[in-house]
Amino acid sequence: MLTVDLNADLGESYGNYTIGNDQDIIPLISSANVACGFHAGDPSVMQETVRLIKDSGVTGIGAHPGFPDLMGFGRRYMDMTADEISTLIIYQLGALDGFCRAQGQRMNHVKPHGALYNATFTDPDLARTIAEAVKTYNPDLKLMGLSNQNLVKAGEAAGLAVRHEVFADRAYEADGTLVSRRKAGAMVTDTDEAAARVIRMVTEGRVEAIDGSDIEIQADSICVHGDGEKALEFVREIRRRLKENDIEVTTM
Amino acid sequence: MLTVDLNADLGESYGNYTIGNDQDIIPLISSANVACGFHAGDPSVMQETVRLIKDSGVTGIGAHPGFPDLMGFGRRYMDMTADEISTLIIYQLGALDGFCRAQGQRMNHVKPHGALYNATFTDPDLARTIAEAVKTYNPDLKLMGLSNQNLVKAGEAAGLAVRHEVFADRAYEADGTLVSRRKAGAMVTDTDEAAARVIRMVTEGRVEAIDGSDIEIQADSICVHGDGEKALEFVREIRRRLKENDIEVTTM
Amino acid sequence: MLTVDLNADLGESYGNYTIGNDQDIIPLISSANVACGFHAGDPSVMQETVRLIKDSGVTGIGAHPGFPDLMGFGRRYMDMTADEISTLIIYQLGALDGFCRAQGQRMNHVKPHGALYNATFTDPDLARTIAEAVKTYNPDLKLMGLSNQNLVKAGEAAGLAVRHEVFADRAYEADGTLVSRRKAGAMVTDTDEAAARVIRMVTEGRVEAIDGSDIEIQADSICVHGDGEKALEFVREIRRRLKENDIEVTTM
Amino acid sequence: MLTVDLNADLGESYGNYTIGNDQDIIPLISSANVACGFHAGDPSVMQETVRLIKDSGVTGIGAHPGFPDLMGFGRRYMDMTADEISTLIIYQLGALDGFCRAQGQRMNHVKPHGALYNATFTDPDLARTIAEAVKTYNPDLKLMGLSNQNLVKAGEAAGLAVRHEVFADRAYEADGTLVSRRKAGAMVTDTDEAAARVIRMVTEGRVEAIDGSDIEIQADSICVHGDGEKALEFVREIRRRLKENDIEVTTM
Repeated sequence: MLTVDLNADLGESYGNYTIGNDQDIIPLISSANVACGFHAGDPSVMQETVRLIKDSGVTGIGAHPGFPDLMGFGRRYMDMTADEISTLIIYQLGALDGFCRAQGQRMNHVKPHGALYNATFTDPDLARTIAEAVKTYNPDLKLMGLSNQNLVKAGEAAGLAVRHEVFADRAYEADGTLVSRRKAGAMVTDTDEAAARVIRMVTEGRVEAIDGSDIEIQADSICVHGDGEKALEFVREIRRRLKENDIEVTTM
Repeated sequence: MLTVDLNADLGESYGNYTIGNDQDIIPLISSANVACGFHAGDPSVMQETVRLIKDSGVTGIGAHPGFPDLMGFGRRYMDMTADEISTLIIYQLGALDGFCRAQGQRMNHVKPHGALYNATFTDPDLARTIAEAVKTYNPDLKLMGLSNQNLVKAGEAAGLAVRHEVFADRAYEADGTLVSRRKAGAMVTDTDEAAARVIRMVTEGRVEAIDGSDIEIQADSICVHGDGEKALEFVREIRRRLKENDIEVTTM
Repeated sequence: MLTVDLNADLGESYGNYTIGNDQDIIPLISSANVACGFHAGDPSVMQETVRLIKDSGVTGIGAHPGFPDLMGFGRRYMDMTADEISTLIIYQLGALDGFCRAQGQRMNHVKPHGALYNATFTDPDLARTIAEAVKTYNPDLKLMGLSNQNLVKAGEAAGLAVRHEVFADRAYEADGTLVSRRKAGAMVTDTDEAAARVIRMVTEGRVEAIDGSDIEIQADSICVHGDGEKALEFVREIRRRLKENDIEVTTM
Repeated sequence: MLTVDLNADLGESYGNYTIGNDQDIIPLISSANVACGFHAGDPSVMQETVRLIKDSGVTGIGAHPGFPDLMGFGRRYMDMTADEISTLIIYQLGALDGFCRAQGQRMNHVKPHGALYNATFTDPDLARTIAEAVKTYNPDLKLMGLSNQNLVKAGEAAGLAVRHEVFADRAYEADGTLVSRRKAGAMVTDTDEAAARVIRMVTEGRVEAIDGSDIEIQADSICVHGDGEKALEFVREIRRRLKENDIEVTTM
């Protein structure tokens, strides 16, 4: 039977500020990427998020480290040295792991957030720095990155287990990177189309790029979003379609 | 043979800002309290500090968590809830532990920093919250607090191993708390007098308070400072006197 | 004709985080207290908030400086020196004033936020420090504080114009301070009762305290909230009642 | 008589962290670029820095706004939108202006700090955004930027008075930009050579680039540093040579 992982970014609230419907999305996914306090999340939010995941029985807790930029939500690229990136990762992995350990949970994977994730598309050195930092911290952690791109390649080169991530609602360039949100057609807004793309990525390992070409893609994990009822509906639809196609949702 | 621990606060630099002579003080102490990024220390500084400690062969790496107040260096009391204090501690322990683990080191103890330490003198609930948080994170960690006061009491009540800390250069009130720095006579500035007090605290378990009364004190660990050549000279003198008195400096 | 000011806290969003319905509440009030980037608000939010106020024709733009604690939303008391409080105020006033000036607006008043406001109830020195800092920055600014309490007293002593603030939805102690939110009966939840209290405070200068005693109160400005449709309804009801009683809402 | 301005970056301390010898460098310069709290400087430091400048009689107080990155000291490029850059500038100008106004001083100029300054070398849009923000805040402010490059060009296009800045201790590329510190030969370490270059830049408007070519340069202001006795000696030597050559040091 085919299986696939569903992942979402969680724990993005901060102090008096609330983002997301973590309680609602958690039962629908199989891997949670938890913000670690630099671009989002504070210690109380992190503890509560780990508790919610634990209570739901979803196994996959992942760290979602980002740039130290709360004001920019980690979406603004920062030009940091390899040493700074490496220690940034280790610090955030350790912090989240603290809450996992305090609650008897194991951290399962790492997925960089926002600009730290996107910058690896064109920067293989950054990808390698991230992979090496994860390995240094704990070589048993899985590294999640954009399917077939630098991050998963760097993870494999470092000897880490990797997860190829695909996006249900994003268009792809012919080279397999994501179409920038600033370009027209970057988002796949039709639920039926998005679901059909997901099914094809999982079953055939292929997706149509924005230029009409057909590209190879490995779909280990599908990224979904949980902000708002509409997003939750979308995830439920994806799950329904996966079930129809005998694809099981399971933590890798 | 009598033994005592010497501890100092380290890793207090931040970005472009440097504080302390960590490289010089590390060989002179047996326990290091490492800042964890909230009141001082950044990820690169933390990694480097753990490396310096590791390289020196000093075994005792401790976490030195503080209030989230870099501007105030953790010296300004913040009125936080028990849950906020607890998660604050776990977050910082986890973060430092990340660097320890990445370098194959074990974290040995926890000593709260600045206002978080001082506030426990009069707030047993805060002391209990800190002790419980440390225990939740890792019950094998030792908790260091002011000798015979709330923090070590709370640690014992929680089932943690504790360390009674004494100060070589600070005067004591008759109740065993420290004389506030705002009061005259708060500091013991004469090296001979300070050394003599230290020897008596370790060998007799007693010290003269500021009002002339003689109080009981348990000296498991002596707090020293490492900023500046004068401070280093002071530590060397303390070590010389301890040796003269056949007291061995050793990590507890 | 009687007049009264209606004030609300605005500009509390930050980066990706949104709080409040500033656009909806602005037309209903006559004075806006704008967060200045320390406990809430970022530069883009501040600029946009000033623009919204300017566009609405509401004249009263006020600074709402708070403790440097975004994680705690300025609601956690921080034990700062008088010099630190003073420069904290001047920095934030200057920053907000920058956006006012860039848009041709004048800052009209200052109201401390959260714990910085509440701490003045019992700390006349803090109140005096705040008043002096405001005066040093610009002696034409009005200082808003809890009616008949330390902040307005300190403002008057400093020679500033002051505004006595009352709360529609909060209970009062017999000494004129607010009943702590931790106590039962702290909030006046019934709209009719709240409105009746407001009318009486404005017209008679009296309000019933939580112990049943009747106390004097000066109602220059009524604090209202704008988060959520229910809060907006409450403000609309207060405005309706004020109109019924021939009380005009106007910026002081 | 020829005149030239000497400028230095000041007010870079933060909380418990001290950088620079502001008291010593201030009497040797004619323009001070004061950090505004984002990459360095806190409110108390800013107030004290303005006071030192005021007391010294040096007229030129300038704002030195930077990226919101204390950990990186504003030296790490951050990919921000034009709106974010613009409000970042206005916020910091307003904040520093608050301390100037509170002490009866006038802010004279603006010089972006670190990565915000350097990024303008290759990004004319960023230069224009900065210039427009300064003009929006206060069109009487002078904008300082690298001689003959984007920032001063953008300032002129915006109708601002500009200052062409030259560096005594940095090598130039043939296009007039600075040789990156990562390249060999980036720094002019010999005091005699540096002084001779400065004199020629001021008197002839020319400097030799790293490739041996001779380029035009306008020297309105010379950037010097004040950290450490050696830096101070360097500034004194520059001043001596300027005097020898009948060039007066004066705030523009």
